Amino acid sequence: MPVRVTVWSEYRHEKKNPKVAEIYPNGMHEAIASHLRKLPDMHVRTATQDQPDHGLSDEVLRDTDVITWWGHMAHGEVTEQWVTKVRQRVLDGMGLLVLHSGHFSKIFKSLMGTSCDLKWREEQNEREILWVTRPGHPIVKDISDHFIIPREEMYGEYFDIPEPECTFLISSFGGGEVFRSGCTWTRGAGRIVYFRPGHETFPTYHDPNVLKIIENSIRWAAPTPGPAIPSFGNRKLGWMDKR
Amino acid sequence: MPVRVTVWSEYRHEKKNPKVAEIYPNGMHEAIASHLRKLPDMHVRTATQDQPDHGLSDEVLRDTDVITWWGHMAHGEVTEQWVTKVRQRVLDGMGLLVLHSGHFSKIFKSLMGTSCDLKWREEQNEREILWVTRPGHPIVKDISDHFIIPREEMYGEYFDIPEPECTFLISSFGGGEVFRSGCTWTRGAGRIVYFRPGHETFPTYHDPNVLKIIENSIRWAAPTPGPAIPSFGNRKLGWMDKR
Amino acid sequence: MPVRVTVWSEYRHEKKNPKVAEIYPNGMHEAIASHLRKLPDMHVRTATQDQPDHGLSDEVLRDTDVITWWGHMAHGEVTEQWVTKVRQRVLDGMGLLVLHSGHFSKIFKSLMGTSCDLKWREEQNEREILWVTRPGHPIVKDISDHFIIPREEMYGEYFDIPEPECTFLISSFGGGEVFRSGCTWTRGAGRIVYFRPGHETFPTYHDPNVLKIIENSIRWAAPTPGPAIPSFGNRKLGWMDKR
Amino acid sequence: MPVRVTVWSEYRHEKKNPKVAEIYPNGMHEAIASHLRKLPDMHVRTATQDQPDHGLSDEVLRDTDVITWWGHMAHGEVTEQWVTKVRQRVLDGMGLLVLHSGHFSKIFKSLMGTSCDLKWREEQNEREILWVTRPGHPIVKDISDHFIIPREEMYGEYFDIPEPECTFLISSFGGGEVFRSGCTWTRGAGRIVYFRPGHETFPTYHDPNVLKIIENSIRWAAPTPGPAIPSFGNRKLGWMDKR
Repeated sequence: MPVRVTVWSEYRHEKKNPKVAEIYPNGMHEAIASHLRKLPDMHVRTATQDQPDHGLSDEVLRDTDVITWWGHMAHGEVTEQWVTKVRQRVLDGMGLLVLHSGHFSKIFKSLMGTSCDLKWREEQNEREILWVTRPGHPIVKDISDHFIIPREEMYGEYFDIPEPECTFLISSFGGGEVFRSGCTWTRGAGRIVYFRPGHETFPTYHDPNVLKIIENSIRWAAPTPGPAIPSFGNRKLGWMDKR
Repeated sequence: MPVRVTVWSEYRHEKKNPKVAEIYPNGMHEAIASHLRKLPDMHVRTATQDQPDHGLSDEVLRDTDVITWWGHMAHGEVTEQWVTKVRQRVLDGMGLLVLHSGHFSKIFKSLMGTSCDLKWREEQNEREILWVTRPGHPIVKDISDHFIIPREEMYGEYFDIPEPECTFLISSFGGGEVFRSGCTWTRGAGRIVYFRPGHETFPTYHDPNVLKIIENSIRWAAPTPGPAIPSFGNRKLGWMDKR
Repeated sequence: MPVRVTVWSEYRHEKKNPKVAEIYPNGMHEAIASHLRKLPDMHVRTATQDQPDHGLSDEVLRDTDVITWWGHMAHGEVTEQWVTKVRQRVLDGMGLLVLHSGHFSKIFKSLMGTSCDLKWREEQNEREILWVTRPGHPIVKDISDHFIIPREEMYGEYFDIPEPECTFLISSFGGGEVFRSGCTWTRGAGRIVYFRPGHETFPTYHDPNVLKIIENSIRWAAPTPGPAIPSFGNRKLGWMDKR
Repeated sequence: MPVRVTVWSEYRHEKKNPKVAEIYPNGMHEAIASHLRKLPDMHVRTATQDQPDHGLSDEVLRDTDVITWWGHMAHGEVTEQWVTKVRQRVLDGMGLLVLHSGHFSKIFKSLMGTSCDLKWREEQNEREILWVTRPGHPIVKDISDHFIIPREEMYGEYFDIPEPECTFLISSFGGGEVFRSGCTWTRGAGRIVYFRPGHETFPTYHDPNVLKIIENSIRWAAPTPGPAIPSFGNRKLGWMDKR
């Protein structure tokens, strides 16, 4: 049974900045989605922020196993209604893959409970080296002990996140900074991945290692088939006697 | 240097329900505060929900090292303004001890990122046994390997919280349910404790073991003296050369 | 590609105690293995302690994705040679499912780093209720919010284990004790599950919920296909220039 | 009540290598101990590997709250007897601070359950930048958001350790490698810290930031006064009835 993925993106830089449009003529989401569409175990759709209801609907969310989230300049314009709905679906089991500047999205902050702030430096054409810190984890399948992205925006610690359940990648940058670039958490029945790379002015989402980690993350975050059964509420005494 | 504690409470059941008033004539917060006031290393104040600004102010929060939080029937009436301010202080280092039905408070839910829902059954006079699951932890100092509360409300799993960094107590109830009754998390520079017991119709906050765990939790959650230095933001290249 | 499982067992109680032999005429390992053999995604073999090399060999370990481990009266007779080999395979990615009294096995203790001691009481025919504390986790797929084993040995906290990465089941017993009955950890590239039930004098390994959790645990602990790449050792400067 | 510290060291490089002896004329342990002796809340002793019983005794261990451990070339010569005794004391509550090449000590490996292997490169005079990843943690009190050691040995990921309960420092090196340089775990009642810097050919243990983190780590790892009460063993039914 294929994983039903919704690749969600803000899709504004690509329309405003010719440099970005050149790298991603159909948007970053299409660069990601076109890779995922080649995989026989994925069923892929896209959604972008300026579509009605941000390209989402109750049906789309219900039929989504994993959503990937890229946003940057317009986090504040995502309506509370859809933040609430996406968040509830994550607690019910939908996987969430947060990409790059999505660290400041409402949905990620509301699930982490922290500011999700960090240090940054852009447009310096810095090389990023990403080191695997949990070999054998499904998310780093087919990744060597490290890989290099020639040019990226710097993100530096302190990254204000709850202690990750697993840190699978740590980056170093040309300036000497470090960053926990691959992290996982569980919230309710939902699995959450943060994956750092993806500044809009660089061709990061054409990089084979980056695309591989995105596809692996989606498989890892996909919900277990069948219902999660988190029963809540008032419970009568004597319930055991009835069994 | 004493720990500056603010014992915060909703303080409504005590005014409406004669049974509760009989057990806690000055409110549950006073039962807790009067114990803490006997300790030479604590400086104690109280604050209640129906005071102006919920008994809080920027000065009170600034001068609070650890806040304890009990609420139940009026979570929804705590204003977003004060939820935001308390939350920010926690991220900056203030300790937070969430008590019993405070699991459903806005402040706890916003820091956990989950629903914080659970099973429950009240007014059955059930005995609760609390088992220590991390001996040697400062919060269970002077507590034996277990203790018993003769009558309490039942809370049962699944408790929808992020995986605790430490689970120091697990309860069993007369009906056969279990609950992670003592848990800790870190959010930003702040340490958070959840401690389960404390239903308003039982004399739980007169129990010596319960009071001991409250005082231990406050000491554990107190911020490290001095500034936490979580520097964020834009970072120039060449910063190392200037050193 | 099926998961290659080796069901390992001490297999002594069954030969010495008629009561046990009656419940498990071919050994507990066969009760487990015969269930697993019905599953199309599992390739099953068994191994027992008193076979040459404890039923193991370098080839068997190499061809095992997940090993399940039940031992009790003869932990001390498992040779250091095989403890070392099994442990190395776990660090290299083989999954390990430790059952019941296997908590005191050399292999489990060596991977945990703690005493793995606990409280216990047997032969009291106590009922055990197991509560799910991580709905949506693959290991509790198709399990309701709790299930009951009518008669089992009691295991009680404190259970001296490192804080689990995930606690997916907590038990309560007739005597009022509690126990973290389902826990996971990662060591190197290997995933480890501890699952509590399984005293030899009760028909626990004929219970459908217990068998379901065993099969789910095996799938969860199975290594990611392909090599885990944990490169170690001396690293020359200038390595980046060569790329 | 002061923390009773035992600064343990292999003390061989200092006697064999004139370069090391010049930096640490009385041994690395004395560089550390002489700093700690200035602190009014510490009671300091030293012990070295080639003393009888490695400078330890049952009395020394009983009277030690926290032991710091530096070893490198002679890990294999530490006797199993003393590894077992030190390990048991940690499980009973003694703090353990493992320094630099102590990652490969028997005591650290036996408490972690993993190989504790890593990448390394020495004698390259590389600068190490250590970034704080948990501001507000007692161990980084009075440390800025980062600090720099001008010359150190490189340690690189993958570092084969169990997922830390808290990662408080991550390093980057001149060659582009990263390393989890400050980590904590709990084993039984004992708190364990690993702190990376300290190659014998560099004056690292004269660095004020390094010494500050060592002293903070010792305070954090010190056991809670009073007994840890991890009761184990056979438990009679009806124990509750007797209360």
